[in-house]
Amino acid sequence: MNSIDEKFKKLGIENAPGQEKLQSGKELELRGGELRGVPVDFSHGDVDAFQPLPGSFEAFAKGYAKGAEQAYTEYRGSKAIREDLAYKLSAYTGTDINPKANIIITPGTQGALFLAMGSLIGPGDKVAIVEPDYFANRKLVEFFEGELVPVKMDYEESSDRAGLDLKQLEQAFLSGVKLFLFSNPNNPVGAVYSYNEIGTIAALAKKYNVALIIDELYSRQIFDKKIYTHLCAQKEIPDNLITVTGPSKTESLSGFRLGVAFGTKELIMRMEKLQAIVSLRAAGYGQAVLSAWFREPEGFMEERIKAHQNIRDELVAKLRTFDGITVRPTDAGSYLFPKIPPLDVDIKDFCKIVRELAEVTITPGTEFGPQFINHFRINFSQDAKAASEAIDRLLRIMERYCR
Amino acid sequence: MNSIDEKFKKLGIENAPGQEKLQSGKELELRGGELRGVPVDFSHGDVDAFQPLPGSFEAFAKGYAKGAEQAYTEYRGSKAIREDLAYKLSAYTGTDINPKANIIITPGTQGALFLAMGSLIGPGDKVAIVEPDYFANRKLVEFFEGELVPVKMDYEESSDRAGLDLKQLEQAFLSGVKLFLFSNPNNPVGAVYSYNEIGTIAALAKKYNVALIIDELYSRQIFDKKIYTHLCAQKEIPDNLITVTGPSKTESLSGFRLGVAFGTKELIMRMEKLQAIVSLRAAGYGQAVLSAWFREPEGFMEERIKAHQNIRDELVAKLRTFDGITVRPTDAGSYLFPKIPPLDVDIKDFCKIVRELAEVTITPGTEFGPQFINHFRINFSQDAKAASEAIDRLLRIMERYCR
Repeated sequence: MNSIDEKFKKLGIENAPGQEKLQSGKELELRGGELRGVPVDFSHGDVDAFQPLPGSFEAFAKGYAKGAEQAYTEYRGSKAIREDLAYKLSAYTGTDINPKANIIITPGTQGALFLAMGSLIGPGDKVAIVEPDYFANRKLVEFFEGELVPVKMDYEESSDRAGLDLKQLEQAFLSGVKLFLFSNPNNPVGAVYSYNEIGTIAALAKKYNVALIIDELYSRQIFDKKIYTHLCAQKEIPDNLITVTGPSKTESLSGFRLGVAFGTKELIMRMEKLQAIVSLRAAGYGQAVLSAWFREPEGFMEERIKAHQNIRDELVAKLRTFDGITVRPTDAGSYLFPKIPPLDVDIKDFCKIVRELAEVTITPGTEFGPQFINHFRINFSQDAKAASEAIDRLLRIMERYCR
Repeated sequence: MNSIDEKFKKLGIENAPGQEKLQSGKELELRGGELRGVPVDFSHGDVDAFQPLPGSFEAFAKGYAKGAEQAYTEYRGSKAIREDLAYKLSAYTGTDINPKANIIITPGTQGALFLAMGSLIGPGDKVAIVEPDYFANRKLVEFFEGELVPVKMDYEESSDRAGLDLKQLEQAFLSGVKLFLFSNPNNPVGAVYSYNEIGTIAALAKKYNVALIIDELYSRQIFDKKIYTHLCAQKEIPDNLITVTGPSKTESLSGFRLGVAFGTKELIMRMEKLQAIVSLRAAGYGQAVLSAWFREPEGFMEERIKAHQNIRDELVAKLRTFDGITVRPTDAGSYLFPKIPPLDVDIKDFCKIVRELAEVTITPGTEFGPQFINHFRINFSQDAKAASEAIDRLLRIMERYCR
């Protein structure tokens, strides 16, 4: 059982967002007293503060009432729902999605990422991953025993692009990378890739025959009228391309576990084959909730985006008052990834300490790349007042640990 | 991409239950006219004929109303729900399940099987599989690149045991098998393993240090007062043991996609690590439905079992009128696996023909082992009258293809 033992030792989840409850009570160096206030869990959005899309529960109830037809869909999802999704997502992205061949419904976007990765990667295959990027991307490469090829993103250097090192990306592609997987907007930074960056990535992938998986989960929540470019709609795209998205974030439907992937026919077929042994299908009744998606009441998205932008502005301003903190304001999505001054404790322990002393949950930067030892991620989709006060407490505790 | 190409070529789903809609319209040798009647899909149970457990939708609605707490549970599932499940399943199986360490909630029982398998098996590992047994078991071995070691079940020989060839099983264990995975009651036969068989399997697994995964999905629907033995409750059990179950079958909750696995602490931990990258968690709101499970209204299970037993008896009698058909009556669950006389067309084509001519969907025996070329499986959890008439049509079409 040795190789499997090794594999699972590497596959840590103790510091993953949402798993903090499982952390062992190992001795932490607690300095000073507790700071009480409303507990805030910045590891994910708060669907009580920003509630599920109006009509989503009703859509579920309708699906349930449909009975057998909705309970047992094809593994790739209900035909009628795929048709509706293909129509809506084609319009949204500016592509032409065939509901029969090019789209699959999955248990959450995580489900889509796993299936897409499993359809492309085997032992020893090189996979390019942006640093920083979504923590599970790295873990997926490990699970499928691929070889991780990191690509740097200088997100602090500019605000009109993500800052991906395109030369390093081409070097990686030249070295035989088979798949490039990235999130746009970037998780954890919230940076949006420029038109130029997306065009270059697409052209390089085409040139070097590299498959692409793009996670667009947060692409509807865009601030400051930034321009967002869907890679799938570019003229020059690689032969193997999967775009992943879902209604779990801005739309707050995470409790239903719904994701969608669309793209290359052969890959969608493989993903379905894999889904057949992984979980059969996204929960049948739940699939019906997708009918409410992209049919938000008038003004809903605008209002939600504005509310998030206000929270972002307040938290960025507050973080910047602290000597030594730098932070790039989010272009899109609900994440901030501040760089903090060096502390007396390592970042994982610091996160545990903040949770212990102030009931504030944050995610250590090292989940997004080994070099982010002075970073943490927050999801600011929270009650505005509670979030602001939680950042106050966090900063007061940080003071106690600054060198 | 060669090894991955190979892998997905082998991973077929065209003939898998529920996927019949995807079958290509390739030319079939259609003999005689269509036989019209109420279409019946025997590939799975009909949750319109046997509806979801009373109170399940209400439990979902309650979970939804709980909001954030229910939407984002730990990856292994909500603590409160795990506590309730551990209590109920400990009582049911006669074991002692620690809700903190020994249980995980998954997206359906398929999800549990995938995670358990992925936690135990790597390339080249030998896995013993019963023939016949649940089709996905074979596919999981292929996906994880294990080596399949078949073990024969002489289910036609007796009615007081499943008929597993225990000598062959010990030979397999002696040959270095690492994992033995089986369903009890057996899918597709519906045979229940005897007390003696279970005791022997447990003792052999202990002796040869073989891990066990047992799928007990249908263990609550037992006919003729057969005795059912939970392996996990035996005195002598192996170090690595996972029991898998869920409310998708007798309780008709498949549309919520809920499964449960309990057993060895270290394996449950691995399964959670894997779940973190496969699908994060079973849908949060859906998990709440598990509160209705094992709290059926008085008489509900008895009535449901009786109704199924009546259908079983009618269909078995009807099948046996046909010259050359043999069938073992189901001990537990809703499957029948009749052996039919040799036909002019192969079994996969015959299944397509029956669907085409009579709107009756059945699953070819070859999904459960390559040697079952004269078998098909039906799930008789259907409207009684429609099922009976569908079998009439099926037999009339079979006549047209008998040699």
